Amino acid sequence: MASNQEEVTLLGVIGSPFVCRVKIALKLKGVEYNYVEENLANKSELLLKYNPVHKKVPVFVHNGKPLAESLIIVEYIDETWKNNPILPSDSYQRALARFWSKVIDDKIVGASWKSVFTVDEKEREKNVAETHEALEFLENEIKDKKFFGGEELGLVDIAAVYVAFWIPLVQEIAGLELLTSEKFPNLYKWSQEFVNHPIVKESLPPRDPVFAFFKGRYESLFASK
Amino acid sequence: MASNQEEVTLLGVIGSPFVCRVKIALKLKGVEYNYVEENLANKSELLLKYNPVHKKVPVFVHNGKPLAESLIIVEYIDETWKNNPILPSDSYQRALARFWSKVIDDKIVGASWKSVFTVDEKEREKNVAETHEALEFLENEIKDKKFFGGEELGLVDIAAVYVAFWIPLVQEIAGLELLTSEKFPNLYKWSQEFVNHPIVKESLPPRDPVFAFFKGRYESLFASK
Repeated sequence: MASNQEEVTLLGVIGSPFVCRVKIALKLKGVEYNYVEENLANKSELLLKYNPVHKKVPVFVHNGKPLAESLIIVEYIDETWKNNPILPSDSYQRALARFWSKVIDDKIVGASWKSVFTVDEKEREKNVAETHEALEFLENEIKDKKFFGGEELGLVDIAAVYVAFWIPLVQEIAGLELLTSEKFPNLYKWSQEFVNHPIVKESLPPRDPVFAFFKGRYESLFASK
Repeated sequence: MASNQEEVTLLGVIGSPFVCRVKIALKLKGVEYNYVEENLANKSELLLKYNPVHKKVPVFVHNGKPLAESLIIVEYIDETWKNNPILPSDSYQRALARFWSKVIDDKIVGASWKSVFTVDEKEREKNVAETHEALEFLENEIKDKKFFGGEELGLVDIAAVYVAFWIPLVQEIAGLELLTSEKFPNLYKWSQEFVNHPIVKESLPPRDPVFAFFKGRYESLFASK
């Protein structure tokens, strides 16, 4: 639990999986914080000051010291508040956790997003195939474990909130089959376990407005075609 | 120094900045290792087995346990061999070192490479501008420090071997001005300091064959235009 002298602020937007990663980590640690919802169409002075390189959320501010990049923030949180460890204590396992988290960012987020938010069918097919290929690696990695971290939530689970919550949402919008129980039974089972974990459940955004927001964005692509 | 019981192997190619990062880290720690030069046109069984997700070098193998992704390997090396620390001991400084290393990979490597290896002038201009914008952040970050890590080499310096050695090489091939002493005096000064550091000097590939290799690749773009 954060002491009274800790000042923790998170700049975010409700529909961002990257912000949600930080929320889960903070909830897991029992850290209280001020949450500031940003308007990405009109970014705050604070956001631009604290993350001039990317001008993106999340931005995490601990006692006046700003940090950007969700996975780097989650590691910092884990190093700062020691209860409920997020990264494994063994250095090789820790390196593997970092590796799989990076795979999610490098191979799954971009491809799955592009498979939904495009009007080009060929582009869509290519990205669906790339998403499936990358999810297959996660399917083989989770096997019959409860979480990627074992019995408890860990870094890869938190990174994969995108897979558990956002992929089902955007695949429904576009009528795609990216993560299904038929294609990826272990990963699908994990995703159900994960979104129903009490810590995660309390950290996820409400589904309906996020669905509506991305449906609006999806349909605008076709309207302007 | 690695004990006699340690088995350390690095799969790499001579012209790769990502492999060079691992070489610098190992040299800094005084770890002896077997180096295996890969042929990327005909990847070894070992490479495909150890890095099935990316099928890329570097692959680092410690006592039979494989790891991929250069920055993750460097962190693992730093956690395993404790002498000559590469990451700062303070957790906020450590997070910042991870942040700037990621900026190099996300904002500089891709843009600078694309500014060289393209036949499209508009594409080139766009990527030159993006490279300059990102290098400006590094220029402001290094200021008048000797190294990004302070008085000693650290993670950001090692990540930035690409900036110090590869950018000057490929900008010469394409006749571009990406990193020059006029545009980025502090960063240029750092790059000279860095490539002349004894540990780095011994870890860099010989310039001429690497230059010839990339020149060949560059010219083939225009030949097939």
